[in-house]
Amino acid sequence: MSLDPAAIDTLKKVSTATITTIMLKKGLRNIWLRGTRPLREGQGRLVGKAFTLRFVPAREDLATPESWSKPISTRGAIEAMPEGVIVVADAMGVTDAGIFGDILCARMKKRGVAGLVTDGVMRDGEGCLGTGLPIWCDGVAAPPSVAGLTFVNWQEPIACGGVAVFPDDIIVVDDDGAVVIPAAYLDVVLAEAPEQERMEAWIMSEVESGVALPGLYPMNADTKARYEAYKASLK
Amino acid sequence: MSLDPAAIDTLKKVSTATITTIMLKKGLRNIWLRGTRPLREGQGRLVGKAFTLRFVPAREDLATPESWSKPISTRGAIEAMPEGVIVVADAMGVTDAGIFGDILCARMKKRGVAGLVTDGVMRDGEGCLGTGLPIWCDGVAAPPSVAGLTFVNWQEPIACGGVAVFPDDIIVVDDDGAVVIPAAYLDVVLAEAPEQERMEAWIMSEVESGVALPGLYPMNADTKARYEAYKASLK
Amino acid sequence: MSLDPAAIDTLKKVSTATITTIMLKKGLRNIWLRGTRPLREGQGRLVGKAFTLRFVPAREDLATPESWSKPISTRGAIEAMPEGVIVVADAMGVTDAGIFGDILCARMKKRGVAGLVTDGVMRDGEGCLGTGLPIWCDGVAAPPSVAGLTFVNWQEPIACGGVAVFPDDIIVVDDDGAVVIPAAYLDVVLAEAPEQERMEAWIMSEVESGVALPGLYPMNADTKARYEAYKASLK
Amino acid sequence: MSLDPAAIDTLKKVSTATITTIMLKKGLRNIWLRGTRPLREGQGRLVGKAFTLRFVPAREDLATPESWSKPISTRGAIEAMPEGVIVVADAMGVTDAGIFGDILCARMKKRGVAGLVTDGVMRDGEGCLGTGLPIWCDGVAAPPSVAGLTFVNWQEPIACGGVAVFPDDIIVVDDDGAVVIPAAYLDVVLAEAPEQERMEAWIMSEVESGVALPGLYPMNADTKARYEAYKASLK
Amino acid sequence: MSLDPAAIDTLKKVSTATITTIMLKKGLRNIWLRGTRPLREGQGRLVGKAFTLRFVPAREDLATPESWSKPISTRGAIEAMPEGVIVVADAMGVTDAGIFGDILCARMKKRGVAGLVTDGVMRDGEGCLGTGLPIWCDGVAAPPSVAGLTFVNWQEPIACGGVAVFPDDIIVVDDDGAVVIPAAYLDVVLAEAPEQERMEAWIMSEVESGVALPGLYPMNADTKARYEAYKASLK
Amino acid sequence: MSLDPAAIDTLKKVSTATITTIMLKKGLRNIWLRGTRPLREGQGRLVGKAFTLRFVPAREDLATPESWSKPISTRGAIEAMPEGVIVVADAMGVTDAGIFGDILCARMKKRGVAGLVTDGVMRDGEGCLGTGLPIWCDGVAAPPSVAGLTFVNWQEPIACGGVAVFPDDIIVVDDDGAVVIPAAYLDVVLAEAPEQERMEAWIMSEVESGVALPGLYPMNADTKARYEAYKASLK
Repeated sequence: MSLDPAAIDTLKKVSTATITTIMLKKGLRNIWLRGTRPLREGQGRLVGKAFTLRFVPAREDLATPESWSKPISTRGAIEAMPEGVIVVADAMGVTDAGIFGDILCARMKKRGVAGLVTDGVMRDGEGCLGTGLPIWCDGVAAPPSVAGLTFVNWQEPIACGGVAVFPDDIIVVDDDGAVVIPAAYLDVVLAEAPEQERMEAWIMSEVESGVALPGLYPMNADTKARYEAYKASLK
Repeated sequence: MSLDPAAIDTLKKVSTATITTIMLKKGLRNIWLRGTRPLREGQGRLVGKAFTLRFVPAREDLATPESWSKPISTRGAIEAMPEGVIVVADAMGVTDAGIFGDILCARMKKRGVAGLVTDGVMRDGEGCLGTGLPIWCDGVAAPPSVAGLTFVNWQEPIACGGVAVFPDDIIVVDDDGAVVIPAAYLDVVLAEAPEQERMEAWIMSEVESGVALPGLYPMNADTKARYEAYKASLK
Repeated sequence: MSLDPAAIDTLKKVSTATITTIMLKKGLRNIWLRGTRPLREGQGRLVGKAFTLRFVPAREDLATPESWSKPISTRGAIEAMPEGVIVVADAMGVTDAGIFGDILCARMKKRGVAGLVTDGVMRDGEGCLGTGLPIWCDGVAAPPSVAGLTFVNWQEPIACGGVAVFPDDIIVVDDDGAVVIPAAYLDVVLAEAPEQERMEAWIMSEVESGVALPGLYPMNADTKARYEAYKASLK
Repeated sequence: MSLDPAAIDTLKKVSTATITTIMLKKGLRNIWLRGTRPLREGQGRLVGKAFTLRFVPAREDLATPESWSKPISTRGAIEAMPEGVIVVADAMGVTDAGIFGDILCARMKKRGVAGLVTDGVMRDGEGCLGTGLPIWCDGVAAPPSVAGLTFVNWQEPIACGGVAVFPDDIIVVDDDGAVVIPAAYLDVVLAEAPEQERMEAWIMSEVESGVALPGLYPMNADTKARYEAYKASLK
Repeated sequence: MSLDPAAIDTLKKVSTATITTIMLKKGLRNIWLRGTRPLREGQGRLVGKAFTLRFVPAREDLATPESWSKPISTRGAIEAMPEGVIVVADAMGVTDAGIFGDILCARMKKRGVAGLVTDGVMRDGEGCLGTGLPIWCDGVAAPPSVAGLTFVNWQEPIACGGVAVFPDDIIVVDDDGAVVIPAAYLDVVLAEAPEQERMEAWIMSEVESGVALPGLYPMNADTKARYEAYKASLK
Repeated sequence: MSLDPAAIDTLKKVSTATITTIMLKKGLRNIWLRGTRPLREGQGRLVGKAFTLRFVPAREDLATPESWSKPISTRGAIEAMPEGVIVVADAMGVTDAGIFGDILCARMKKRGVAGLVTDGVMRDGEGCLGTGLPIWCDGVAAPPSVAGLTFVNWQEPIACGGVAVFPDDIIVVDDDGAVVIPAAYLDVVLAEAPEQERMEAWIMSEVESGVALPGLYPMNADTKARYEAYKASLK
């Protein structure tokens, strides 16, 4: 089942930084994927359910151009991707073999994939970007995936950038990288994130007015009262 | 199906070094698992089918002591292990959380597991060795697996030490570490390995007699003739 | 103030593995120091208050043999060490310059230092061990500290092996490495650790009797009842 | 005491590359901070006294949002920063927790901080840049500092990017990164750097005229004479 | 002997990604240099014979500004570079000492060097780019080469980015980085690469028309027939 | 020319630690080879001239079992080794392919090679040790050199463990690892090392008598006088 459009709307206004703050307060400190960043400036913020891909290291008898014709292949995976998902590929942090090039990215774009996130790299980076698919990755490399990786399966639990990602989890990506919201935590993030964003924006305006940090951020009782008054004034 | 006892007998006399030489000649250069070595001296050489375990990174909501009671858990995996297998655990090279301690090792030993191989580490190293289970790993660490790892499943394709391992593959471990023989290559290794060992032993005896390397190793035509004569003399 | 002898007695019977389990249940997952292990087999388990040392990288104008004569020097630090402490040296994981050699170790031993822990390395490893000082470190290197490190101060908060250590914390080291018990958590560890050890020993005996893991470890209600009966029988 | 404006003027015309050449000739080879670069193009060159910050690894009982209210906190540190300093933060090279976000950067900017240098990363990178504070760092990450770091103190000797930095040292940053001039070496750099820049500019013009390198760079006696003649012609 | 202009023309239309695909089919999986990328956007694609440089680590008695006057020096090497070569410098992946600055780059440009590739870094990055020399490297650092490197020789076999490069090999660099075509494989690449590019372009157009991947990429018999018909229509 | 036997005798009594201290005082901080240690306990201390070997990364067309028959091969290198040398092999720190196995070690031993030092690893570690050749390396791996390395040449300047080694340099190895004495510094080490050892032994005896460190190590004027008296008493 795809993600509720209202949830997408809400999360599109919440930075990945704010999501990590909320999750840390719930006890989850490890939800930001290391080694992945926007391949191009200005890709903005995307929200979607995770569609996971899993690779293991290359073995010369398995990781061959011929393997691309098998039912269990990156090709098969792409044809199984529902519209609106964010593909998250566990490349084990391998940076010397590109998981996909322009052709596969073009097909993902055609299928309505919202974006691609990996702790690995792309090949033919310019070609990939030319397809219009937003990509978060650890750079580019010329060699094909089979030079370093063997594709295993899709929609399994994976590791990506040192973080566990499950098929039902929600992914948010922006200029600070990618975070995972475990499915069971979606409601709490939706409930608390907008207020957190509002509060931090108010604190920012206070700093710009010259208010010092102690007592402001975090807020002490006086500051909280001022903030509540501000919020009341908005209604 | 477990491994043929005759195959085990043959492979017990073949070093992991020799297996890598044979496999390289078949075009497979990446079958030795990095980051795993005998936990204790004198563990000798073991041969068995791979029984794979897979971990992803810890997430505080999943990687908890409570998770150990779930059907899909390291406990469940252990109770599913057939006699004679070599357990290969993909710990993603994490070295600051021990995948197992003495209790789980004791149970594996009870169940007839031949040995344990991981690119991660053990906890309570002395306790683990006290169970008599032969272990190849990357050292020891005090913290439990859930401090860094979430167990996912067993008998899936895995990465271990930068090598792909599938449930049907054959594992050989000795003082040089662990190698995987892909199931489809078992017959060729069984066919060629004993001769490779015999030939290298003869070359070694030649070196000890003072023969220089060029023409000896690799053998030129003259040397090959001498070696064939030697082999004929054995019959 | 030095550590209560009764606390030392209790903790000497508790493995570092068990301490990490208890601390994880309290929400602290990062108390095991990476990159430090016994320099010699058979050093056993030690318990003591942390006496911290801090290094920064070498700068040729500061990190000189002449610097060893300054009041703020490793020499000054050693003369300030109380009896019974465990020295914890933040060497920033530098492994190509030894923080101490035989002479400084000999002096620490003379002063009654219980042991030395570092995420760096020793020089003249044999000489260091010859002094009888128990040492946990990341190996040995010939160069002196000033080849890579500048000593800064003692008894400050430090990083060691990726863990925060404060002067009042308690250190326990054994074959699995070194753990820190934050001062505020000492009482809870003293209260819970002996029972944890007792329980795990009983579970181990059950495994050795052939009991399967599910329901045993962790214990379900039936197993808990059996364990309580066992404990009652001990009185 | 803040840095002499004349010194700032002189150093603003000296590249970090030239400073490393001069310092190497004085025997200091390790003054360039690894793992830090301009967060945005076009930040130019900045000069200022170092104001140091020190972090150790996160411990869940210490590294909490609540800790931000303590007197010894990043907030307290910011309120202690004099105008014109360059803040240098020892984040131990941690790249998965941002040391500061937009609010703290805005306050530093308000207080007249000249720039921020760290071997760690920022969070909400766009927001940080939006404050106008020039930043040299190792990238961005969404999680807050407390996800990986515990703040300890300010104005202590620190390590940053493998280099020792003391509170009185001078920092110069440009597109090639950040260098430290130990306080005791400021005068020699001020004395020699402008001539080094002048000489290299002249050599560059010679190369552009087609002069070959041998004898030119470094200069032999003939070239030196031509260069002296050039300098005399300027007067 | 310099590279045939027709070969250059052909290779200028072949991406490094395509070259790695062709070489992998010939059994060579390791021809892409790790840790090197365009220093500036828009440097395009370059083709040339490799002119190799080799460094070893700095030793204070050898790696001095004085060493720059020796016959065997980077200066000597530059004066030996033929027009049209691509310089490939083995800096052992050292990223804290720049192998060259603006002066040496200016001289290489004067001598007609086509481009510079290294697994190390440049110093005075802006100055280097200002000379117009296209550069592929791993970033910038202020310190001079002698802070970390000792120059050894030119036109020897080298390692660069984990790949073996010999003086007669052909280098192709573009936005995906640098690949080496071993001299003995030049003809096969020239023969096969244009067709590979043509075929992938056709597949890309099919994807853009909405064709699904299975059977298209790789092509099954039907698709091959369609592609052959397309090629026939071009004549 | 081989090393003077008197020099060998002198250096056999000097630890690698002491050599690094003396060289640091001469301004050389980088002479200890990282990533190499005794393969077996009790190999003692060895002294000899460096005989260098150089590898670059494997390329499938070059790094083949067939390459072992070429004149420029590890076999050719071994037959060129003079008696008494210490072989130093630049394996670029590669730890997943063993540079030599038992046969080549046996031949080196036959030829009178004093010892082998590498920043890489051995294969068939037990077999290698069985030949009696003393070995310093970074561990063991099953795969042959051609799985990761291409042999290039012998007696060239090399990098080994981050240190420059030239064919005429002197190598000393003991339990703390391997150091290089540049040929030009041999005399100064021979002149100063015995006194450094004597002095440190006396300081050690003072520490064992209970003398505190300040003023003792380094020695102040009073201590120096006492030490001079001690030395006078020896005559």
